[in-house]
Amino acid sequence: MAQKPSIAKGTRDFSSEEVLKRTYIMNTIKSCFTTYGFQPIETPSFENSETLMGKYGEEGDRLIFKILNSGDYLSKVDDALYTERNSTKLTPRISEKALRYDLTVPFARYVVQHQNELSFPFKRYQIQPVWRADRPQKGRFREFFQCDADVVGSKSLWQEVEFVQLYDAVFTKLQLNGVAIKMNNRKILSGIAEVIGAEDKLIDFTVALDKLDKIGEEGVKTEMLSKGISESAILKLQPLFSFYGTASEKLEQLKGLLSTSETGLQGVSELEFITTTLETIGLQTASLEIDVTLARGLNYYTGAIFEVAAPSEVKMGSIGGGGRYDDLTGIFGLKDVSGVGISFGLDRIYLVLEELSLFPDTVSSTTKVLFINFGEKEALYAMQAITKLRLEGVSSELYPDIAKNQKHLGKQITYANKRNIPFAVLAGDDEMEAGTYTLKNMESGEQETLTYEALLERLK
Amino acid sequence: MAQKPSIAKGTRDFSSEEVLKRTYIMNTIKSCFTTYGFQPIETPSFENSETLMGKYGEEGDRLIFKILNSGDYLSKVDDALYTERNSTKLTPRISEKALRYDLTVPFARYVVQHQNELSFPFKRYQIQPVWRADRPQKGRFREFFQCDADVVGSKSLWQEVEFVQLYDAVFTKLQLNGVAIKMNNRKILSGIAEVIGAEDKLIDFTVALDKLDKIGEEGVKTEMLSKGISESAILKLQPLFSFYGTASEKLEQLKGLLSTSETGLQGVSELEFITTTLETIGLQTASLEIDVTLARGLNYYTGAIFEVAAPSEVKMGSIGGGGRYDDLTGIFGLKDVSGVGISFGLDRIYLVLEELSLFPDTVSSTTKVLFINFGEKEALYAMQAITKLRLEGVSSELYPDIAKNQKHLGKQITYANKRNIPFAVLAGDDEMEAGTYTLKNMESGEQETLTYEALLERLK
Repeated sequence: MAQKPSIAKGTRDFSSEEVLKRTYIMNTIKSCFTTYGFQPIETPSFENSETLMGKYGEEGDRLIFKILNSGDYLSKVDDALYTERNSTKLTPRISEKALRYDLTVPFARYVVQHQNELSFPFKRYQIQPVWRADRPQKGRFREFFQCDADVVGSKSLWQEVEFVQLYDAVFTKLQLNGVAIKMNNRKILSGIAEVIGAEDKLIDFTVALDKLDKIGEEGVKTEMLSKGISESAILKLQPLFSFYGTASEKLEQLKGLLSTSETGLQGVSELEFITTTLETIGLQTASLEIDVTLARGLNYYTGAIFEVAAPSEVKMGSIGGGGRYDDLTGIFGLKDVSGVGISFGLDRIYLVLEELSLFPDTVSSTTKVLFINFGEKEALYAMQAITKLRLEGVSSELYPDIAKNQKHLGKQITYANKRNIPFAVLAGDDEMEAGTYTLKNMESGEQETLTYEALLERLK
Repeated sequence: MAQKPSIAKGTRDFSSEEVLKRTYIMNTIKSCFTTYGFQPIETPSFENSETLMGKYGEEGDRLIFKILNSGDYLSKVDDALYTERNSTKLTPRISEKALRYDLTVPFARYVVQHQNELSFPFKRYQIQPVWRADRPQKGRFREFFQCDADVVGSKSLWQEVEFVQLYDAVFTKLQLNGVAIKMNNRKILSGIAEVIGAEDKLIDFTVALDKLDKIGEEGVKTEMLSKGISESAILKLQPLFSFYGTASEKLEQLKGLLSTSETGLQGVSELEFITTTLETIGLQTASLEIDVTLARGLNYYTGAIFEVAAPSEVKMGSIGGGGRYDDLTGIFGLKDVSGVGISFGLDRIYLVLEELSLFPDTVSSTTKVLFINFGEKEALYAMQAITKLRLEGVSSELYPDIAKNQKHLGKQITYANKRNIPFAVLAGDDEMEAGTYTLKNMESGEQETLTYEALLERLK
């Protein structure tokens, strides 16, 4: 009968400490979202398959978890199809629902479905799990939380300004100083492709450029050549390989390079508005960098592109990213709704805070005081104090079983130590008679006998 | 291309207001859990099928959502089985994972899997969604949150005492006064079946008794007769049909009725400890009632059984329930771990609070002030103030698009009104020159021109 239990591949149990630390990160982000005027929404864990399928490319479709229909699902499959025995063709006949793959497509569905109830521009945030049938590996899970903030319904660049500020606000509040917010613009990438005459190779060109950090200048050039980008075109790119200086110096270089591309200059002007505004307003602890090699989700973004890098002392990929997309809801029939949004990489932020010991001690502290249980009478006496302490917000526990001997008492003390409970209360006949409580500091071993009022004072 | 989007049957989108109200309920419960020494854990949304299947009876197995294997799942099905074309037999070959049906079985799995890392008694709470392939109907959803607190590893009745206090603490904090916490004990039900000589009909007997509220004394008797319980047995039950009075009066009646049943008397003694202790300690706003007709989850519970009824002015089923079960983890090979736990019915609590208008106004308030956008220069001036206000925790927004004329301005004002934003700031040339802000109270229409410090004072 009994099975040795195990957990599904690529999923995680979270211990109390982990839940509390994750909650700390999420609550910090939520509080910033709120001061920025974002409102929470939640969508269901599964959607009708047609809502999700075809929205993430072929690879995405493959990675979506499908839910089997209930009941006698095979009865709805026609004989010819069944006989074919083709998994891909059978799936849509035996599965009508699928687990959410990200928060963006459900959000688009939400906006279209509720468009008459919403006030635009609509600023929403959403923190919920998503599921992907990826091969699990270190740091990659089949279930993980996404944390997104988006605004839809306005093309104003003030939103890009605000999102940079929001990143700065969140990471400052998490005491994670020194993150780099990198920014690019799809129009600049298009402009570059245009001026070097490689418009038809935009994707190949940006994918190669995106690797500059990893494979260096020569590597990038070799890859471009291999993709059919001409040597003369690559020659024109030279300024990008020595692209240093302040934001305004970089903008000047780009203006030169892109002088013949209207699109490119538009991108530069957008970047310029955002950077100069933020120079005026100032950031708290983050730095803002123009990075023309940044190309994440290029097929998707139409304007600004953001990516956040952890402080340089930590080896970690990006801990956030986002950008502007001009047609979020078009897939569901609502045209011309521009959106811009960012996301926070919760799992990676967790690892970074852990590595830098940035979780406040208070985050994972739980119970403040354990009352030792010496017997029925003593337990009642203890529970009367515990009841009052809890009303004052002091986390308190009674050890449920009676300590009938020294060994039992040791067990209760061990329980307090294992749980990192900082105080124990011992109250026997003497204390009950005097109406007092003996408080033991579990770290120092120090004991003092106190009235209830003094006890509350110490524990509050 | 474009589809009219819809949501999967039995699932819900939650608007901002709904999310905020739900979060308020959950955070209130969590804060009480914490002061009672419960620690949060989280388990994955899906488990290996063998962890869940067979744990909830045949009906439960049917209602578990199964996840289709990825890739060419049919390739692993042998020909003979495929030819049979039997959905029930095919399922375990093409699906290895399933969505969590409740939080109890995953919790049992967690305890067994992590037994060496945990300190017992282990007090945990868990607030996560569960999924059931039930036919959707009013108030019944395919995805809903469960909210459970359990202690495993001790048989102490102090835990039952604490759970009654915990219910009282949570509902008092939610300002939901007058809930009735009903309590029974499986041993009393077994004892009654024993003394009337219907031990082999325990389930039939309790199922019938449980309906006393709905079908009355005669109805219950007729049902018992039809299930083969003898007339003489039913005659012995007479005291239960006029079971009134204080807790101690009820306990006396039960002692008489159960005088020949050791098990029954044990149950009475347990109930007595809990009720007399709670009489001494006192409850804040809830009442505690002994209800011998209470039989929820009988197959499961071995000791105390709890159920919470909403205040009588609200028509609503139970808003919470729980009990003691002596062998939670046996299904996974860990014997003799007694557990006791309660759960809160979040959706119903939500409906009750809504009906009685008990959600504090502050819960769903979002942005405090909208800065009107008159132009690029004015927006920068506004954003400098907004940045400072946000650092002080004041939720503030800049309308992203510029009001070029009166109609645009009206749109911004309408946006503030629709969003229930209580204040607007208007700052044009005059204000910029004087370094001031004109604050408009959106309800009264009153306006005053203020320095930044005075503005902060008003909005904080």
